[in-house]
Amino acid sequence: MTTLAEEVARTFGSPAVMIDLDQVERNIARLQAACDAAGLANRPHIKTHKSPVLARLQQEAGARGLTCQTLGEAEVMAEAGLSDILISYNLVGPEKLERLARLLRRMPLTVSADHPAVVEGLGEAAAAAERPLDVVVECDTGRARAGVATPAEAVALARMIAGTPALRFAGLLLYPPEDGVQATQGFLDAVQAGLAGEGLQARIVSTGGTPNLKHLGAIRGATEHRAGTFIFNDRMMMACGAATLADCALDVVATVVSRATPERGVLDAGSKTLTADPGGGLDGYGLIREVPQARIHKLAEEHGFLDLAACPDALPVGAVVRVVPNHVCVVVNMVDRLVTTRGGRIIGEIPVAARGLTG
Amino acid sequence: MTTLAEEVARTFGSPAVMIDLDQVERNIARLQAACDAAGLANRPHIKTHKSPVLARLQQEAGARGLTCQTLGEAEVMAEAGLSDILISYNLVGPEKLERLARLLRRMPLTVSADHPAVVEGLGEAAAAAERPLDVVVECDTGRARAGVATPAEAVALARMIAGTPALRFAGLLLYPPEDGVQATQGFLDAVQAGLAGEGLQARIVSTGGTPNLKHLGAIRGATEHRAGTFIFNDRMMMACGAATLADCALDVVATVVSRATPERGVLDAGSKTLTADPGGGLDGYGLIREVPQARIHKLAEEHGFLDLAACPDALPVGAVVRVVPNHVCVVVNMVDRLVTTRGGRIIGEIPVAARGLTG
Repeated sequence: MTTLAEEVARTFGSPAVMIDLDQVERNIARLQAACDAAGLANRPHIKTHKSPVLARLQQEAGARGLTCQTLGEAEVMAEAGLSDILISYNLVGPEKLERLARLLRRMPLTVSADHPAVVEGLGEAAAAAERPLDVVVECDTGRARAGVATPAEAVALARMIAGTPALRFAGLLLYPPEDGVQATQGFLDAVQAGLAGEGLQARIVSTGGTPNLKHLGAIRGATEHRAGTFIFNDRMMMACGAATLADCALDVVATVVSRATPERGVLDAGSKTLTADPGGGLDGYGLIREVPQARIHKLAEEHGFLDLAACPDALPVGAVVRVVPNHVCVVVNMVDRLVTTRGGRIIGEIPVAARGLTG
Repeated sequence: MTTLAEEVARTFGSPAVMIDLDQVERNIARLQAACDAAGLANRPHIKTHKSPVLARLQQEAGARGLTCQTLGEAEVMAEAGLSDILISYNLVGPEKLERLARLLRRMPLTVSADHPAVVEGLGEAAAAAERPLDVVVECDTGRARAGVATPAEAVALARMIAGTPALRFAGLLLYPPEDGVQATQGFLDAVQAGLAGEGLQARIVSTGGTPNLKHLGAIRGATEHRAGTFIFNDRMMMACGAATLADCALDVVATVVSRATPERGVLDAGSKTLTADPGGGLDGYGLIREVPQARIHKLAEEHGFLDLAACPDALPVGAVVRVVPNHVCVVVNMVDRLVTTRGGRIIGEIPVAARGLTG
């Protein structure tokens, strides 16, 4: 009997990245239901799938708008007819601002900013586009990523935005740490109070992250949530308790190509497929569904090195396996297409239309 | 004054990957001269650049043939008119073997194998192609990657190849560990003796690796060398002493997009650009040429997190920098084009024609 993985390898070559559309739809529905139950708009982050086809499935299930991490992603989504786009990233530099102005001429947009220099550029782009640009202030409530570091800075930046012709202060963008509900609430309350004192109001208060789905509804004043990874899930989401193995909808199909000794083997998926993403300290680079005790302990570019000490008789040369990767978002970005399946059968392919568009 | 990096960001967007063609040509010439001096054929590994344009530069400088790590790379090179291709990878599974037969029908090829099951498949492909296929036996002399583990297995596999209609035993493929000249020599001598006993001869004895350039000529019986990374070099090659910063011909152009505090900043190059490749234990994910004391200490997908404790006044929002990545081979594979420069000016672009072709 031929397995689905063998069928995929046979048809599309190995390695390949495949998704189970039934599970994708279940994940989309669950995220939507969770947002609905919490009274939050669902604004899924498309950096995970980079596909207008999947963004449309999310919209049809009830999502309100979508989130992009790069301008290139937003351009691809706009080109495909999607709208209500939030770009959760500082857009900086003349090339970006010209492209932003071009896109803004076509449709309303919301972008985030965390610095006066960024706001200044956005103001120029919006003026050039002759359409007001909605700007949310990114706030850092503990992750030490981007985002203003204090409520006072957030209020000052909101005031600057509100005072910039062509810009509209639209609200706040947060990516709370998983254990940071309380700190986030404190930061947010302080900003809201400061805004009120300025006569400003945050129409959008956007929280983010699949790991934060467990806190959905816990942050008072939030209006929407941005989750990306949940559409597919991965080992990282399993590790943080956001998903089980059954919730994982994306697998890397790979083939055992070498078995030098009973304890060692090589998969044809290396760092150019699985990526070197350590998944925040996971053991190895992927979970082999068929033989979970086999460890992908190291990668070369086209080699996934297998430690088979626990299962020396498994996985002969030619065995085709399904690997749940550490981090789906970076894996999807390695391939130009996702093989789609339903009920154990191949359906077709979806282009990863925004692959590689990091700017 | 506008810098080259600013010019690149302005023209092609940020982040971008650029190469200095002058330095590329110097690197190509140096590798060729080193191989010439050692009396070895130079068979550069194109997995690093994945570009027929650059493969042709290598050939014009004197390279004998080229090395590919995947069949997809070989197909792209063949399509561009390049020949004398060695695929240094076990090709396994029906889809691969059909494509191999198709390519073999077009031109002579050499591929490696380390297992009887692999040789069996190659034999079927060559029979279907009706052209003999040259096969080299991959030997593991200490890296514990692919490769037969003992000289006896190498000889047995050579015998099997020689006895398979449509296959020709062509020689041996080695990727010696950096500190493994002696072990490699011992392994090789034992294989050669065994082959002689079987009336077989290794026409090709192929060694590999840019880190092994320092041993070029040290392994008696070697006939050719496969180096990939040396065309561009990177932080890993600097760390192992194969290159200096001046030898690094590829930079990631990136922009500072966030400065939340004096000690912290964000570059717009994250794991979807620089990749999470740790470079074998380097400090951080790249070297910023303009401000080497700034550390790219962590990555998110589109964020390169800067530790600026040592240089709090450097790198304001909008600063455009050149980053020498940890590992060029995986960085090139993230982008569809390389921006080319000469003498500090932009020349154009080269497509990364085999990008993403991991099978």
